Amino acid sequence: MIFFKNDYGSGAHPKVLEALVSTNMENTVGYGMDEYTAQAADAIRAKVGCPDAAVYLTMAGTQTNLTVIGATLRPHEAVISAETGHVCVHEAGAIEATGHKVIHVPTEDGKLRPADIDKVMKQHCNAHWVRPKMIYISNLTETGLTYNKAELKALREKCDEHGLYVFMDGARLAMALTQKDNDLKFTDLPELCDVFYIGGTKCGVLFGEAIVIVNDSMKPDFNRIMKQKGAVLAKGRLLGVQFKAMFDGDLYLELGQHCNDLAQQLISAIAGNGYEFMWPPCSNMIFPIFPLSVVKKLDEAGVLYDDFEEVGDGKAAMRLCTSWSTTQEEVDEFIKLIEK
Amino acid sequence: MIFFKNDYGSGAHPKVLEALVSTNMENTVGYGMDEYTAQAADAIRAKVGCPDAAVYLTMAGTQTNLTVIGATLRPHEAVISAETGHVCVHEAGAIEATGHKVIHVPTEDGKLRPADIDKVMKQHCNAHWVRPKMIYISNLTETGLTYNKAELKALREKCDEHGLYVFMDGARLAMALTQKDNDLKFTDLPELCDVFYIGGTKCGVLFGEAIVIVNDSMKPDFNRIMKQKGAVLAKGRLLGVQFKAMFDGDLYLELGQHCNDLAQQLISAIAGNGYEFMWPPCSNMIFPIFPLSVVKKLDEAGVLYDDFEEVGDGKAAMRLCTSWSTTQEEVDEFIKLIEK
Amino acid sequence: MIFFKNDYGSGAHPKVLEALVSTNMENTVGYGMDEYTAQAADAIRAKVGCPDAAVYLTMAGTQTNLTVIGATLRPHEAVISAETGHVCVHEAGAIEATGHKVIHVPTEDGKLRPADIDKVMKQHCNAHWVRPKMIYISNLTETGLTYNKAELKALREKCDEHGLYVFMDGARLAMALTQKDNDLKFTDLPELCDVFYIGGTKCGVLFGEAIVIVNDSMKPDFNRIMKQKGAVLAKGRLLGVQFKAMFDGDLYLELGQHCNDLAQQLISAIAGNGYEFMWPPCSNMIFPIFPLSVVKKLDEAGVLYDDFEEVGDGKAAMRLCTSWSTTQEEVDEFIKLIEK
Amino acid sequence: MIFFKNDYGSGAHPKVLEALVSTNMENTVGYGMDEYTAQAADAIRAKVGCPDAAVYLTMAGTQTNLTVIGATLRPHEAVISAETGHVCVHEAGAIEATGHKVIHVPTEDGKLRPADIDKVMKQHCNAHWVRPKMIYISNLTETGLTYNKAELKALREKCDEHGLYVFMDGARLAMALTQKDNDLKFTDLPELCDVFYIGGTKCGVLFGEAIVIVNDSMKPDFNRIMKQKGAVLAKGRLLGVQFKAMFDGDLYLELGQHCNDLAQQLISAIAGNGYEFMWPPCSNMIFPIFPLSVVKKLDEAGVLYDDFEEVGDGKAAMRLCTSWSTTQEEVDEFIKLIEK
Repeated sequence: MIFFKNDYGSGAHPKVLEALVSTNMENTVGYGMDEYTAQAADAIRAKVGCPDAAVYLTMAGTQTNLTVIGATLRPHEAVISAETGHVCVHEAGAIEATGHKVIHVPTEDGKLRPADIDKVMKQHCNAHWVRPKMIYISNLTETGLTYNKAELKALREKCDEHGLYVFMDGARLAMALTQKDNDLKFTDLPELCDVFYIGGTKCGVLFGEAIVIVNDSMKPDFNRIMKQKGAVLAKGRLLGVQFKAMFDGDLYLELGQHCNDLAQQLISAIAGNGYEFMWPPCSNMIFPIFPLSVVKKLDEAGVLYDDFEEVGDGKAAMRLCTSWSTTQEEVDEFIKLIEK
Repeated sequence: MIFFKNDYGSGAHPKVLEALVSTNMENTVGYGMDEYTAQAADAIRAKVGCPDAAVYLTMAGTQTNLTVIGATLRPHEAVISAETGHVCVHEAGAIEATGHKVIHVPTEDGKLRPADIDKVMKQHCNAHWVRPKMIYISNLTETGLTYNKAELKALREKCDEHGLYVFMDGARLAMALTQKDNDLKFTDLPELCDVFYIGGTKCGVLFGEAIVIVNDSMKPDFNRIMKQKGAVLAKGRLLGVQFKAMFDGDLYLELGQHCNDLAQQLISAIAGNGYEFMWPPCSNMIFPIFPLSVVKKLDEAGVLYDDFEEVGDGKAAMRLCTSWSTTQEEVDEFIKLIEK
Repeated sequence: MIFFKNDYGSGAHPKVLEALVSTNMENTVGYGMDEYTAQAADAIRAKVGCPDAAVYLTMAGTQTNLTVIGATLRPHEAVISAETGHVCVHEAGAIEATGHKVIHVPTEDGKLRPADIDKVMKQHCNAHWVRPKMIYISNLTETGLTYNKAELKALREKCDEHGLYVFMDGARLAMALTQKDNDLKFTDLPELCDVFYIGGTKCGVLFGEAIVIVNDSMKPDFNRIMKQKGAVLAKGRLLGVQFKAMFDGDLYLELGQHCNDLAQQLISAIAGNGYEFMWPPCSNMIFPIFPLSVVKKLDEAGVLYDDFEEVGDGKAAMRLCTSWSTTQEEVDEFIKLIEK
Repeated sequence: MIFFKNDYGSGAHPKVLEALVSTNMENTVGYGMDEYTAQAADAIRAKVGCPDAAVYLTMAGTQTNLTVIGATLRPHEAVISAETGHVCVHEAGAIEATGHKVIHVPTEDGKLRPADIDKVMKQHCNAHWVRPKMIYISNLTETGLTYNKAELKALREKCDEHGLYVFMDGARLAMALTQKDNDLKFTDLPELCDVFYIGGTKCGVLFGEAIVIVNDSMKPDFNRIMKQKGAVLAKGRLLGVQFKAMFDGDLYLELGQHCNDLAQQLISAIAGNGYEFMWPPCSNMIFPIFPLSVVKKLDEAGVLYDDFEEVGDGKAAMRLCTSWSTTQEEVDEFIKLIEK
């Protein structure tokens, strides 16, 4: 079966699964107060080089976004996001349900830039408006692009100028950090972000995300707000066991590298066959544009599902994702299908 | 290790874990649209005898409570709960965070009764008050007691009289349905409740709860509200696989029976040694009162953790829980420790 | 003093003020249960020709919008508005604070059109998105334009097609209904809207708005939700007395006519002097574009305050409003100031 | 007409009304940015002796409570109130609608005491609970009692010990400060409270309350949150004009004194005739218990409305309020009616 529909179609990497299986019969205290969770948090703090970071493990991405944003903002404060951002579109109003406006910023490619922030701040100038107080950026973006170190530094400086927090959604951070042209490293994140999350669900664990809080002002009682939002797992150690397996060694980045490597083969083949992309392809998530004849062929091979959008001229765009479990065979088969 | 601290200390029953392992490398569509989730829902509908029920799988208990209540009530509507109810105390204000008041009702033993409802309705008589619109009951209650069929029928009738929904939190439903004196069955629930959830986390799965919506008016767009509350798992099939393993056969009730059987041995031994209980002991969750000398002994044996409360007269009350993974050896050892 | 800064700068029309003064020493029951409020509601029901409408009096506009929208929508439902709409920009996130997303629609002139609705509905196609459930339109719009009968009929039909409520913010309804080219009448509103409000604050009362609920499904317990949102005045009769004074006769529309008539003189003079407008000028709220030399002259005469925006080419746009208390003298003086 | 039903039955004191009438035709800037509002704020700051206080004028009591509490608390924080407190019962869940739990504390007489706070804090001991962060007290209480200086000092110290804010609802502050046995003064409030409001609606203005924020941490952006909650009046100067009339001289306390003086006559007569009270009568709001024969007599005289509650033994309790507009004649007539 060729599966490029998304990067959360399969379960957990065998090492992660094995860690869950081998600890299954242990009894531990609940709600993330266990040793595995403590060890996972330590491993993450070491990896990002921030001994004072507060680390919390949650179950899923939307839950994480609404908890971080809801916990941080005062009632009249708003978060700025590219209009393609996950919090703008695919969370069924989760952020607004915590009472906060998401300010949608149109962008050309899904990336927020300092000039966008200036424009928003200029508009929200008096007490009749919400006060923008945070930017939300995804790295990878929802368009499959990365923010590199210089871009994040520029955003950080702009945010400091306006008194804004920087929140990075790292649902696909493993792929962002291992993208071949990206110079960003784990250890850069603490000074570039006030808070970020290290995505697990799309990067090799069964389920779970790791929130890393750098800014001291966001730390007090964060766990109570997690509890309030339903984001605390009774058997919290399940998350600890998984993230410990990921971060005791280098598994996390290895899996991101795997995704990017296989995707790079797809990109070369697609471009080599003369097809274009909606956005510049660079990561494990790419958006090729195929003639409908190719789309039909892919559909018959079971690759397409329902995820394509006609873009005129007899063509359609689709999203392809490689994942930690994608095999060389799948890549080879796909390439055969699109060869002219 | 003797572990009676809670009933969510260990992982999943081996059959459930095996189902996760054996399906780990399959790729499925996300967000609960997969076949395993569909099959789990079918199995649950069959078990409760309600072909029209809407069944949704969520990750955790507080998440479930806030999603069900938040999805159902209009802004000014409130939920009535015994003041010992989980939504009153241990959810860090999760229900209020969705905008709704929880009306706390003092009770003698943690069980809500028809007369309590009358009293609340009489008080909330005009437009200056919230409108009570739902009762929340836990079965097992947080005091370890059960509601039987007649008690639930009386609550149902009282709620119908006042136009109230009945929501049953079944975090420990497996134990409630297999408690030796309880005549309540799965198939009774659809006519007694508008919505209930079948607890998984405390009853043998790794994590997860199954919401069963009987009342048609609560069904539209429930999944969008789940998404908004962060209660939709990307790899939704993880929940489907687990609940299918539980409900294709009788595993769910077998595990509840196991808990109750071992607890019954504890109860007999504790009572036989002349100790009393805070509430009548009947289920897998009991609250014995021991002299501090016994408490000390238990503490030294590693049984106590921090969960006891001095009640005067040189005595302390504690909560003991058996779980699906409790062994006969643990029970025997505990009994030895408390023998006079 | 020439005052065109806004249409809520002065107090109440003398007839309204007199009604307040003459009833000042009467004692009535509170919270809108008094006879004056009942009579005002009756007068409004008669004026709009909808005997079954529920009429509620509130204190202010943002309060009204958040109460109507918050009372009507389920948690995952969103309201569609032109991005210039009051709820999008000038309410400090009041709607989001009730938990609901406001979907901002870019428009050329501040008016929402059926094609805009189609586009939003197509985008919000699955359970990851909020469900659009209501349109919010202002009449007058924030750009000073009107919706006429045909335009509203087209919106109504489009909304019926998609199952959307129509909510009209009538903060300046008096001016919309008396705009010389507009064929819309009070009696048209009940079949065009599910709910609308008749603005008082900007139309001659001291303070207050009148909500008219046509759709039966929105009526139950609306007063409790008003109470919850802080929108019920203890001395509710103050609002009743004022709206009774407005609607026992034709004062409401007479004041709207007065605003429009004087504005028409401004429009003629401004256009006659060769100046342009940001949007087609037609109502009591117009947006002329003047050279900075004229702006300076107006500023020196005390007309400008801080409400102008440079638009390039040495010009600036400003908002001018006539109100029920604007005098012919003010208009004449202003015209003199801008004459070439 | 004898009117003791409540203290908000009539309009405004003539001096207040006259101020509104005489300024009616002036044009001022909106939203509380006008000179009258600035002058009223200055007068209030002078009266309470706190030059740094932030003063904001709002329209009504529930609105004020939800704005102050909603603006101050983080999502997981809760407010403690006597269970008879206005925020507990008569605001239709307004506080919970901002996302916060109100912790109801049973009391004997409607007054919160330091020991009550200790008890709440002890219970809310871990991250599963909301964090109590504020106490809400009414002065007068809803039972017609006062907090004196020593009582408030004890509460203040207890709150400091636990890191709690003190919020005083002064809906009837005029009466509390002029109650004959109360040593509390305006100038005591800034050091006893973090924030309080000076009630206008029940103390002689047409409508309006004045929030006084002492604690610096509560001041930033308070006006934006007011706007968001719908608590900013477009013609904000209406509130400024009224409070200026009240606080330029001593009108506010004079009217409170008037209420108390007349109430004292009622108290003497009722007690003198041998009747008892639900709570010790001391202020303008008293709760006598009459035989049903007296109730009938009062009802026939039009005094009773629907506000009485049978308390057994052939007796009923009712609430009586004097107001700024109560006359000596009303008092005399009432006393005649209850004389044996």
